[in-house]
Amino acid sequence: MTQITNDIEYPGDLRNTRSLFTIAVDIGGSLAKVVYSPEGSDRLIFEAMETELIDEFVRLLHSIIEHHNGGSQKSAQVIATGGGAYKFYDLLKKEFPDVKCISRQDEMECLIRGLDFFIHEIPEEVFTYNDIDGEHIVVPEHAKIYPYMLVNIGSGVSILKVDAPNKFTRVGGSSLGGGTLWGLLSLITGAKTYDEMLSWAHRGDNTNVDTLVGDIYGTGYDKIGLKPTSIASSFGKVFQRGAHLPHAGAIADGTAVNETTDDSELTCTSEILTRNKKFNRADISKSLLYAVSNNIGQIAYLQAKVHNVPNIYFGGSYIRGHLTTMNTLSYAINFWSQGQKQAFFLRHEGYLGAMGAFLTAQETST
Amino acid sequence: MTQITNDIEYPGDLRNTRSLFTIAVDIGGSLAKVVYSPEGSDRLIFEAMETELIDEFVRLLHSIIEHHNGGSQKSAQVIATGGGAYKFYDLLKKEFPDVKCISRQDEMECLIRGLDFFIHEIPEEVFTYNDIDGEHIVVPEHAKIYPYMLVNIGSGVSILKVDAPNKFTRVGGSSLGGGTLWGLLSLITGAKTYDEMLSWAHRGDNTNVDTLVGDIYGTGYDKIGLKPTSIASSFGKVFQRGAHLPHAGAIADGTAVNETTDDSELTCTSEILTRNKKFNRADISKSLLYAVSNNIGQIAYLQAKVHNVPNIYFGGSYIRGHLTTMNTLSYAINFWSQGQKQAFFLRHEGYLGAMGAFLTAQETST
Repeated sequence: MTQITNDIEYPGDLRNTRSLFTIAVDIGGSLAKVVYSPEGSDRLIFEAMETELIDEFVRLLHSIIEHHNGGSQKSAQVIATGGGAYKFYDLLKKEFPDVKCISRQDEMECLIRGLDFFIHEIPEEVFTYNDIDGEHIVVPEHAKIYPYMLVNIGSGVSILKVDAPNKFTRVGGSSLGGGTLWGLLSLITGAKTYDEMLSWAHRGDNTNVDTLVGDIYGTGYDKIGLKPTSIASSFGKVFQRGAHLPHAGAIADGTAVNETTDDSELTCTSEILTRNKKFNRADISKSLLYAVSNNIGQIAYLQAKVHNVPNIYFGGSYIRGHLTTMNTLSYAINFWSQGQKQAFFLRHEGYLGAMGAFLTAQETST
Repeated sequence: MTQITNDIEYPGDLRNTRSLFTIAVDIGGSLAKVVYSPEGSDRLIFEAMETELIDEFVRLLHSIIEHHNGGSQKSAQVIATGGGAYKFYDLLKKEFPDVKCISRQDEMECLIRGLDFFIHEIPEEVFTYNDIDGEHIVVPEHAKIYPYMLVNIGSGVSILKVDAPNKFTRVGGSSLGGGTLWGLLSLITGAKTYDEMLSWAHRGDNTNVDTLVGDIYGTGYDKIGLKPTSIASSFGKVFQRGAHLPHAGAIADGTAVNETTDDSELTCTSEILTRNKKFNRADISKSLLYAVSNNIGQIAYLQAKVHNVPNIYFGGSYIRGHLTTMNTLSYAINFWSQGQKQAFFLRHEGYLGAMGAFLTAQETST
C-alpha cells in the first residue's frame, strides 16, 4: 500500500530551474521512498511503500512518469539512494531503459542534504513533542543550527554529526531499529502492518510485561534516583516457569506435539500464552516500542555528549509521527541530559534521503 | 535447580575473624544468590537459583544452617542485598526468627565491595576473552585498577564508575538486559531454561534473521567503514508479508482460528513459522543474544568514553561464562573504542553483590 505524506510547496529559488523531470528514490531495508514534482507544479510529492514490494514500487515510478511527465522517459532522470540503489540498480536499468540517466548518490550525503533543506527552507517542518507540553513548531535560529546530530531510524539506526552544510561524520549506529521492532512484533503478535502494531502499542500497558524498579524493591531506589515506575528490565515479567511446564508442547486443542530439541521448529508458545491469557498484544507492543525507543534515545544522548552537540534531530521512517514514540525519545534525551539537550522531529522524517537525492539532481541537471 | 559455582579459598587475613556464621544473600529480579563459608572451613561456597522459587531458596538457606552451622540460628546472621532484600524481608524475618540479625545492605555498595575483593584478593579471577585469542588470566596491576567501570548485567543493566574503594557513582543503565533476552526468547522459542537458550544461541546462525549491510547494499558501505557482514538491523529479515497473509490465524492441523483484533489474545505466529520452516530457534536465539550483548557493549563503551575510564568489568548473571556472549561484549568494546578500552570478565561474575554483603557482615560482626 502506498503511503502519501503531505506535499510541500517548492521554495521559489529552486523552482523552474529544471531541464529534466526528476524522480528521486531512496530504497532502504524496509521502505522505498520517492520524491518528485509534477510537471508544471510548484509542489513536492512524497510517497512510500515496503521495499519487498519492489515490483509494485517500480509500477508506481512508471505511473508517475505516465501521469506527471506525459509518459516520456527520455526527458526524465532517476536519482537513487539508499542500499537499494545498488541492490536494485539492474532492475531500474531494465525497467527504465530510455531515461536520460539513472544515477546513484551516497546515502549519508543525501540524508544530510535533505535534512539541511528541511531545516532551512521549509516552514513548520521542525517541531518538539512530549506528552505534557504537546507539540511545538520550532523555527531554527540559523546561526545556531550547527553542529547538530542526526539520528536516522530506519531498519537500523545511523547517527551522524553535522558540523556545517555537507560536512558530516557517521559517528555511530545501532542494529536495534525499526526492523527489530517490526520483526520481533510480527513474530510474537502476528501484526500484519507496522501501523497496526503502533496502534496496539498506543493503548497497551507495558507494566504487565516489564519489570519495574518497584517490582524488585517494593519501592523506589532513592539513593541512586530510580523511581518505582522506572523500567528495570524490559520483558522481565515474561519468563514464567509455569508457562512452560509441564505442557510446553501442547497446542490449543489439547493435542500434544513432540517436545523436540530439533531447532528447525519453534514450539507454539504463543498459543500457550493465549490459553494463559497472561500477556496480550498491546502490552507486548508497547513494551518493545518503549525498549527500542528508550535505547535509541540513550545512545543518541551518549553520542551527543561524547561529541558535545546540543541538538538532536530524529529522522527515518521508524517514528511516523507516532506520539508514544516521540514522547519516549524526547523523555530519554531530557532524562539523560538533565534538560541540557533537545530532541527535534520533522514532518517529512522518512524522506530525508529521497529529498537530498532530489536536490542533488536539481543541482547537477541545471 | 540450584546452581553451584566454583568455591574459592578464603584469603588468610579474613579467616577466623568470625564470631557469627554468616549467610549472605543477593536476591535479584531473576536470580537469588547465596555465599557462605562452612564452619571450620577455609572455603567460600557460592550457590544460586531462580528468585521465583523463593520458597525453595529459603529451604536452601535452612539446609545451609542445618548442615554447616549445626542447625543453630542463634549463632548465625543473614545479610541480604538486592531488591529482594526489601521485597522478601518479612519472609526472611518469619523463616529465621532466631538468627542474631537480618540486615539489609545497599546493593550498589555490595556490588563494588565484592568486585574490589575479587579483583584484589582472588588469584585467576579476572580474565579477558575473545574467539581469536581465547581466554587470558589477568593479574591487575594494583596501581592501575582505578578508575574502572562495572557493567552489571542481571535482569537489567547497571553501570557504575568506581574511582577508589567505596567511592563510586551509578552513571547509567539499561532496561535491555538478561530479563529481556530470557523473556523474549521464552516467548518466541519456548526455551525452558536460560542455559538451553544459550546452547541454541551457540550453534545458531543469526544471518538467517538479521539484515546485514550486504543484504541492503549488495556489498559493504566502504565510505563509512561498514563491512558487508555487519548487522544493519537485528531481526530485519523476520517481517515477511507472506508469512502473515492470508492464513495468519491457522494452526498446524489446518483448523482456522478466529483472526481477531481483540488484544487479549496472541495469534499463534510461531506455529506459522513452524510450517514455513523459515526461522528456527537457534538462529533467533543467536540474533537476540548478539543484539542485547552488542547493545550493552556499545552503551558501556560510550559511558566509559564520557567518563574517561579505560577498563570495563562485566559482572552479573547474564554472562555465565558463555563464550559467544563474552566474545560479543569484547568485540563491541574493541570495535567502538578502536582498541583503546578493554573488557574484563570474572569467574564469580554473578556473585559480586552477595560477596560484598558477606564481607560487610564480616567487618561489622568482628
